[in-house]
Amino acid sequence: MRTSIATVCLSGTLEEKLRAAARAGFDGVEIFEQDLVVSPDSPEAIAKLAGELGISLDLYQPFRDLEGVEEAQFQKNLKRAETKFQLMARLGIDTILLCSNVGTATISDDGVVVEQLRRLGDLADSYGVNVAYEALAWGRFVSEYDHAWDLVKAADHPRIGTCLDSFHILSRNTDLSRIAEIPGEKIFFLQLADAPALTMDVLSWSRHHRVFPGEGAWDLSDFLTRIAATGYAGPVSLEVFNDSFRQSDTNRTAVDGLRSLRWLEASIADTPGKAAESQQSAGSAGPGSALDLQPLPEVEEPRGINYVELSTDDLGTLTRQMHQLGFQFIGYHRSKPHVQLWLRGQARIIVSEVTEEAGTTSAPVNGTFLRGIGFEVTDSQSAMDRAALLHAEEVPRDQAHDDEVLRGVFAPDGSEVFFHQFDAATPAWIKEFGHDHDEQVSHIDHVNLAQPSNHYDEAVLFYTSLLALHAQSSQDVPSPSGLVRSQVMSSTDGSVRMPLNVSPQPNAEAVAGRGIGSVVEAYPEHVAVACEDIFQAAATALSRGLDFLPVPQNYYEDLDSRFDLDLEFLQRLQENHVLYDWDEHGEFLHFYTSTIGSVFFEMIERRGDYLGFGAPDAPVRLAAQHRKNSQRGA
Amino acid sequence: MRTSIATVCLSGTLEEKLRAAARAGFDGVEIFEQDLVVSPDSPEAIAKLAGELGISLDLYQPFRDLEGVEEAQFQKNLKRAETKFQLMARLGIDTILLCSNVGTATISDDGVVVEQLRRLGDLADSYGVNVAYEALAWGRFVSEYDHAWDLVKAADHPRIGTCLDSFHILSRNTDLSRIAEIPGEKIFFLQLADAPALTMDVLSWSRHHRVFPGEGAWDLSDFLTRIAATGYAGPVSLEVFNDSFRQSDTNRTAVDGLRSLRWLEASIADTPGKAAESQQSAGSAGPGSALDLQPLPEVEEPRGINYVELSTDDLGTLTRQMHQLGFQFIGYHRSKPHVQLWLRGQARIIVSEVTEEAGTTSAPVNGTFLRGIGFEVTDSQSAMDRAALLHAEEVPRDQAHDDEVLRGVFAPDGSEVFFHQFDAATPAWIKEFGHDHDEQVSHIDHVNLAQPSNHYDEAVLFYTSLLALHAQSSQDVPSPSGLVRSQVMSSTDGSVRMPLNVSPQPNAEAVAGRGIGSVVEAYPEHVAVACEDIFQAAATALSRGLDFLPVPQNYYEDLDSRFDLDLEFLQRLQENHVLYDWDEHGEFLHFYTSTIGSVFFEMIERRGDYLGFGAPDAPVRLAAQHRKNSQRGA
Repeated sequence: MRTSIATVCLSGTLEEKLRAAARAGFDGVEIFEQDLVVSPDSPEAIAKLAGELGISLDLYQPFRDLEGVEEAQFQKNLKRAETKFQLMARLGIDTILLCSNVGTATISDDGVVVEQLRRLGDLADSYGVNVAYEALAWGRFVSEYDHAWDLVKAADHPRIGTCLDSFHILSRNTDLSRIAEIPGEKIFFLQLADAPALTMDVLSWSRHHRVFPGEGAWDLSDFLTRIAATGYAGPVSLEVFNDSFRQSDTNRTAVDGLRSLRWLEASIADTPGKAAESQQSAGSAGPGSALDLQPLPEVEEPRGINYVELSTDDLGTLTRQMHQLGFQFIGYHRSKPHVQLWLRGQARIIVSEVTEEAGTTSAPVNGTFLRGIGFEVTDSQSAMDRAALLHAEEVPRDQAHDDEVLRGVFAPDGSEVFFHQFDAATPAWIKEFGHDHDEQVSHIDHVNLAQPSNHYDEAVLFYTSLLALHAQSSQDVPSPSGLVRSQVMSSTDGSVRMPLNVSPQPNAEAVAGRGIGSVVEAYPEHVAVACEDIFQAAATALSRGLDFLPVPQNYYEDLDSRFDLDLEFLQRLQENHVLYDWDEHGEFLHFYTSTIGSVFFEMIERRGDYLGFGAPDAPVRLAAQHRKNSQRGA
Repeated sequence: MRTSIATVCLSGTLEEKLRAAARAGFDGVEIFEQDLVVSPDSPEAIAKLAGELGISLDLYQPFRDLEGVEEAQFQKNLKRAETKFQLMARLGIDTILLCSNVGTATISDDGVVVEQLRRLGDLADSYGVNVAYEALAWGRFVSEYDHAWDLVKAADHPRIGTCLDSFHILSRNTDLSRIAEIPGEKIFFLQLADAPALTMDVLSWSRHHRVFPGEGAWDLSDFLTRIAATGYAGPVSLEVFNDSFRQSDTNRTAVDGLRSLRWLEASIADTPGKAAESQQSAGSAGPGSALDLQPLPEVEEPRGINYVELSTDDLGTLTRQMHQLGFQFIGYHRSKPHVQLWLRGQARIIVSEVTEEAGTTSAPVNGTFLRGIGFEVTDSQSAMDRAALLHAEEVPRDQAHDDEVLRGVFAPDGSEVFFHQFDAATPAWIKEFGHDHDEQVSHIDHVNLAQPSNHYDEAVLFYTSLLALHAQSSQDVPSPSGLVRSQVMSSTDGSVRMPLNVSPQPNAEAVAGRGIGSVVEAYPEHVAVACEDIFQAAATALSRGLDFLPVPQNYYEDLDSRFDLDLEFLQRLQENHVLYDWDEHGEFLHFYTSTIGSVFFEMIERRGDYLGFGAPDAPVRLAAQHRKNSQRGA
């Protein structure tokens, strides 16, 4: 599948955009006119640079407000088009995007539009240019893809085709079945964008909130399958207007974009039956293979979180807290002198002490922070191969010759994601710490990660495409310093659950130690450990002197008014610093520890089939952490 | 007018919110339930603190999902209400907000709701509590204020009244005339919020985008006038859910909120006829004076920008650029040894050199930045008095005994706003620099100020309320590092024009030197000077070696395709680095200088009645500045 990206998706100068697209591995780009206008490089220099970078210039865009106008205006518009055709010759671009008229159309008459398209086609022909006519969702008289196609079909000119843009089509909820009527060779260009489900005016939605495929709410696999069935053989291009992407690192955004296309491509390539089916039902004769779709190594949903690795320069404080929570020290790694293993049943925490001599270039050096997560996957080699093809950066790692080979990649938040071969028995690597088995019933229930706000959508796609996790609907959680956006990524059976949290403080968006951006006040991350008896765990923790996160009396009084709780039970909750939630499936009991560096723990007990994370309690936690921070600051 | 604010408007802990509200000068607060639940302070401690701070606790809110339910559920709801009444007794609050049922209502029968309200009233009576029933815009069966009022009227219970919230009413575009039917004493509470004109689902609009009165698109003067006419005598309270306010400095937000109420109050108090009129037309007998509205000293729109003050630690570079632009050095201030005056016709620039010995506590010390603006007002004393009553902070200023008395305040972006007595003749203070008059035709056309993103709405209200400027519709301008939000504040005749720009880079939101937040890359500000002949100005500048901001060749080629320009004229533009725009009223020609510190200049010539600021050229400028910055960084 030939991949392309509109320069408007990326930040930076036009030159920076071209370099980023090429470095990420795109085959081509769409030149967004304004990027060229503000560039000091001539069209010839841009064409030359693209040649040197090995990327094609696939489209010049946009050309606006041509058709559906009176003759005098149309003459002017044709003249304006001609200057663009001349410019395209200098750029070496043979296709231009024509958007349906938004601003100047006065004639709602398909016959007039067809005739004007045909005349534009004649002019385009003299310059060897193809015109891809696209219905903007907010076009004055033409706003539906099938209307645009009817016009193109009626124009019946070899230089006039249509451009299909998933945003303009899916945002209007138009019936997709007529895509099958369009012969692939009359689709002159294909633009993809995903979008979150928002209820707002479509223009603002389009200009600010588009995201890459897999980062929104739409089924772009279905959409692309329908296009493939037409026999379309051109580039599959991303056109995403997104406020965050515009201000993010351009190389990261380009990689994110290409990942989305590779993932989407594979989602169709993996299911060849789907394309054939859709094609059949649409009655089209298109071969569906013209896109040359490449699969990726398959990945199934992870079976669980094998371990969490914490890095610390404050070993005593951290391991004391773990001991208070009932974790047992197992041993040091036989070949890594600063690495310990702690277990609580199946909950495994690796603690890497960062000492001055142990500091390597790859390891960040300060604080206590969540360094990585080991996921149990059914085929670790396949998962790693897939990750590499999805342009994830591999974690450099020293390994003794007889250690289990663990490979992993960096997530967008800088944490390390390792792929472990799933095995129902105790994992092999545990033996490297001199441990055989454990019988306590406890496991890692979920891990809560802080995300830099500009890379939030990237994170969703990362976990979706590499680990087949699913994005649940996001929530806003009030905190004393603003709303925290919380997005749970999870496997279907809930064995892997990761709430991703975006801090409201732009300066606090970095995770201490992982070296993403500047750190003012890191938003804390946590490991939630499930146990069988929260009161027993709390009693142990109390007796061992745990610094619980304080829960206000007002909270318990409010609990009493919200739920019809037994007074004795309520008292027991309060005495043990335990918070409580309830839904129709079951109950949730949990307590929090104080924060060390940027990490804290949560101990939880799920009763029945409670599926959530105690969302009503999150503001209580955030307020308590805010007070602790303020006290520390004072 | 008694003022109040919901704690949910402010960031921080409940204690911090109470202190901020009191410090700003509010008479009372609404306690938002969640703020209490997450607080470690008992209800009694909160009540005590409020007493010590001298603020009243006016409302407990919200109570949800009471009415329109089956009997068994209603019994539970009553019990839940009772726990809140008990809690309110501990807080010393006598009014609770009851929102129309959103989640659990199953019975769409006004009779049932009336009966349930009456029963709630009986229970409330036994606790001495008043219930203010409010129609939420997204209520299940009750979503209009007049429907809620009909229900309250039918319930006919002394403990049941209504709450009017401008958001829920104005967001639905409901006819306001029925407000006049409500006796003031049955309005148990009044909540005000403004909002920008957005097309989106009303729940998200309400939860994230409310702003203080004067910061949005609604006519709250009219709304409050109608309420005043009912004879309502209770607090006028702000209930504003806003993502930025939630993460901003709580004291600043509180001041911003109180300013909005004082401004709104005065807007009605200033026009006593209006309230009477509205009252008459509504046929109500309410006195309209129960709110005890206080006026503010009047301010008329400013007549012009008297001067701009630049502060610099690089005097030579700055004044060389000003000389290149045709500014003339006039002299040093007679009593301030580091302060120079430069003139170009009526365009006056004061240059304050910041030297190590001159550095005072109030003056920031580094860089070249825009320090302040002198506005010409018809009554400077009145403007200053008004500013003080609107809680603006006065600029401390040394003054020799025989100098003109200049007083001013700090704007939200840290710049200084000075009020000059308008006088058609040459301003008196100019003589302090040994200058009498000037004949060159030139003036300050506009000043472009960078705004910290979290204080954007505050800035709009500041200039509206202190200087009677008007907010024009905002625009997004693409730059290589993201979209720049641009909002023009101007006087009706255009003699004062200030585009306010919010940088897309959260870390770059500060203005160098003015000490707002941390500065990574300051978004540059500029002074635009109008001249009679842009080509002559450019020629002078060229001959004096000005470092023009470079304009790409591609820009001129695009100009050619956009406008039907004479080739010779186009060449002349290009040779002189002059950019060009056109609208139906006239033409705009302008060039930019390079940036010194965080300041640059723009020289402009307006032909005809062109009203804009060359918006299509702004991306060209931003891209060129980005390239210069990148080069400097490399």
